[in-house]
Amino acid sequence: MNALKIYNSLSRTLEEFTPIDPNGKKVGLYVCGPTVYNEVHLGNCRTFFSFDLLYRYLSHKGYKVRYVRNITDVGHLEGDVDTAADSKIEQRARLEELEPMEIVQKYTYLFHEVMDQLNILPPSIEPTATGHIVEQIQMVQDIIDNGYGYEVNGSVYFDTQKLIAENKDYGKLSGKLVEDLMSESRDDLKNQEEKRSPSDFAIWVKASPTHIMRWPSPWGEGFPGWHLECSAMSTKYLGKTFDIHGGGMDLQFPHHENEIAQNLGACNCQPVNYWMHANMLLLNGKKMSKSKGNSILPKELFAGSNPLMTKPYSPMVIRFFMLQAHYRSTLNITEDALLAAEKGYQRLMEAHEALMALEQPQLSDLAKGLDIKINKLLDGAFAELDEDLNTPKALAKIFGLVSDIQKFTNGQQDLGSIAPETLARLKKDFSAIVFDVFGLQKEALIGQSDEDKALLDGLMQMIIEQRQEARANKDWAKSDQIRDALQALGLQIKDGKEGSSWSKIKS
Amino acid sequence: MNALKIYNSLSRTLEEFTPIDPNGKKVGLYVCGPTVYNEVHLGNCRTFFSFDLLYRYLSHKGYKVRYVRNITDVGHLEGDVDTAADSKIEQRARLEELEPMEIVQKYTYLFHEVMDQLNILPPSIEPTATGHIVEQIQMVQDIIDNGYGYEVNGSVYFDTQKLIAENKDYGKLSGKLVEDLMSESRDDLKNQEEKRSPSDFAIWVKASPTHIMRWPSPWGEGFPGWHLECSAMSTKYLGKTFDIHGGGMDLQFPHHENEIAQNLGACNCQPVNYWMHANMLLLNGKKMSKSKGNSILPKELFAGSNPLMTKPYSPMVIRFFMLQAHYRSTLNITEDALLAAEKGYQRLMEAHEALMALEQPQLSDLAKGLDIKINKLLDGAFAELDEDLNTPKALAKIFGLVSDIQKFTNGQQDLGSIAPETLARLKKDFSAIVFDVFGLQKEALIGQSDEDKALLDGLMQMIIEQRQEARANKDWAKSDQIRDALQALGLQIKDGKEGSSWSKIKS
Repeated sequence: MNALKIYNSLSRTLEEFTPIDPNGKKVGLYVCGPTVYNEVHLGNCRTFFSFDLLYRYLSHKGYKVRYVRNITDVGHLEGDVDTAADSKIEQRARLEELEPMEIVQKYTYLFHEVMDQLNILPPSIEPTATGHIVEQIQMVQDIIDNGYGYEVNGSVYFDTQKLIAENKDYGKLSGKLVEDLMSESRDDLKNQEEKRSPSDFAIWVKASPTHIMRWPSPWGEGFPGWHLECSAMSTKYLGKTFDIHGGGMDLQFPHHENEIAQNLGACNCQPVNYWMHANMLLLNGKKMSKSKGNSILPKELFAGSNPLMTKPYSPMVIRFFMLQAHYRSTLNITEDALLAAEKGYQRLMEAHEALMALEQPQLSDLAKGLDIKINKLLDGAFAELDEDLNTPKALAKIFGLVSDIQKFTNGQQDLGSIAPETLARLKKDFSAIVFDVFGLQKEALIGQSDEDKALLDGLMQMIIEQRQEARANKDWAKSDQIRDALQALGLQIKDGKEGSSWSKIKS
Repeated sequence: MNALKIYNSLSRTLEEFTPIDPNGKKVGLYVCGPTVYNEVHLGNCRTFFSFDLLYRYLSHKGYKVRYVRNITDVGHLEGDVDTAADSKIEQRARLEELEPMEIVQKYTYLFHEVMDQLNILPPSIEPTATGHIVEQIQMVQDIIDNGYGYEVNGSVYFDTQKLIAENKDYGKLSGKLVEDLMSESRDDLKNQEEKRSPSDFAIWVKASPTHIMRWPSPWGEGFPGWHLECSAMSTKYLGKTFDIHGGGMDLQFPHHENEIAQNLGACNCQPVNYWMHANMLLLNGKKMSKSKGNSILPKELFAGSNPLMTKPYSPMVIRFFMLQAHYRSTLNITEDALLAAEKGYQRLMEAHEALMALEQPQLSDLAKGLDIKINKLLDGAFAELDEDLNTPKALAKIFGLVSDIQKFTNGQQDLGSIAPETLARLKKDFSAIVFDVFGLQKEALIGQSDEDKALLDGLMQMIIEQRQEARANKDWAKSDQIRDALQALGLQIKDGKEGSSWSKIKS
């Protein structure tokens, strides 16, 4: 097995991946999941797609991956109850109150729906922040006990100055200077006066009287700071130091930097060996922004219901589109790019179908050159994936094979000129890369049952026969009429050596 | 609005439903959800289907329902590590251990998949037991503080004798006598010697050294007792006393009885106004049992992959089948019953399609009798639903309407003979009952996109024209040939007054 190389954001270099597991089999992977207070953003989808690809490729390489992707459900929703100490609050039926968990449930459900549509595999464990309050309180306590946290008025802050003074690399991940860090911490601005230093951040926040999500703690009623959950949950499920931590590039600072600080504070160790960050998605060249009207939801893209696009694009077209860029490059969604992706996706699926139908009529010892070429393209595709998951280059190798498959299909190239084992490998590895690793699906499998597919095909065979009969009778009017009627339905008949076939006309 | 009557398991009578909410709008509903340590059982599906129907009908009646259905993810998985005090355990990477949350994730995902297939709506909140450890520890503390709990060796037990002595109705729900209760408590048999009375039950369990799921508590490391989560989570999200609590009949004792005890112990109040219990599902007349080979999984039923059935049955056929019995009756799955349900479901969907296509050609003042009959059937369907959700009887009323729709369609009954408002109401309420309340879906919507549906229809129109042309030319051979070819595809053409239509041939 060739080694996978990963660009490590912490060292800023391409490193060969070696798991902690002494047997080299098990891999721990943590990715920051969605905040379920609104519908998942297409940019988030790209991040989850990128790490889905990593998960799939590690699994393909034979690693046993424990993939943890959390759900951030501790929000900052405040209730509409009066802050004036109302002793009746406790007696009010909970049913009367705004319940953040209803919002959490709604958006978690929608998030899972979009992930399923995009064929992004569920992680091995999907822990929630509210589900790990005990562990988070324990971690705050450990940080305090180790001298890296201090309590002020029921809130607890992380003492970044102590970490910086000890030269423990605070700021290394984001590459920020200490002076920058001092002025950059944006959370809990309202409690600045409680902090010893501007770069300190809250790890436990005292709940205001109107805050609904609150739990008892040694420091009074409150809730965890937003960086804490990932440190507590990755430690619980993957250990104090684990292999790979991923997330969107925007999380590098302060979120991931503070995760490192928290783990150093709680157990004096670097939590992660390889940090990976997925780049941004642009829309028509600009950052997506709801307020500026430059924004599109996944469901709008699938349904074609957003004015920025003239037609719908299926989940697999979006997936194909995302494969065309490396995860560390920005990717720009435009209608032209999606149209091109749609054509590319269709071409790839057709090539796969044609490949699977190929049977060698005869064997020959000729032209070893083609064997070598096909094997090189397959090896090359894997080599590109090993190179920090270079999907656009791997895709190019695959399209090199698509050309060969087409030449076999249309008779330009003789199937007998490759060795049987080459054809067998081509079938196996082409399928493995396209379906297992790239995670593409035949779209016909979505929204069309096998039964209906068979029906469509049966009816088309009947119509093809009618047309052949008309042509045999030189009834050109009728033959044309059938062609036009099919065209109106978006279908076309192709006549070939071995009879006629039909397909949907591409737009 | 007519009142809904509910059979209350606690009073064993049919009671008119009145919500706690003084405005009569909001309803709190709690249903015991699945234990996600294996694939969801078809019997569980029936329970969740029954309460889905309640949720849908309450919503249809205009109530704003907060529906809480939990996920039981605190299992009793023990690790494979040596019990001998191995100080290295703590140093081992978590990744090396068996992780119960991976199992939880896998089966939660599969559970959601089956619920979606059966069109069982997601609840408003789906809390997990592991996500509410803080609340459960607090409840144990409250029970101890109120004198209803006692700690022995790191475990805490509920003092049922105190409750019985105070005559607080312990045993009322399940109708068990105190003497029976004394001998019936089956949980924690291994710790019988710690209990003051055999009917006492654990509310906090000390974790053995090999127990993986464990949390710190005032009584040492442990995990919550099996009954506690529902009491803690219903209190958190619905209040100390809420409207309706549902579950399978097998949960009445000890689970629900002990829930009542816990709430009485923690806050001295009855938690629930209406207790509802769904009855069992039998398979070929016997209790389902995996070990006896008398068992079938939902996915096996949908795929036709279990030897007990000769063919697949779709999720909507299963849903229709379940509607045919009242939720408090046992329901027996047999192949004959499923075949009948399949026909009934198809007839209902066809009637709906025919109904929606009905347009009144003319109005007349004749035959008010038919108006009255149709309105009576619709009123009757709602009245049956109001009677403790009597779906089989409501379904019978709907099939009364199916007969009338068929008579309108085939011309036996004159559409002009009913008032326009009657037709309008028929369209509205028939759809509301069939889709919103019964939760049926047109199966074509599953596994067939609108696009493919349009394609099939377009091709069939072409073929119908070919056939008509052949018949016009008295080319009977060709006309028969088309009919036979369609038959082979499972399709038939029906010739009617207003042209020909096509449909799938029913098996």
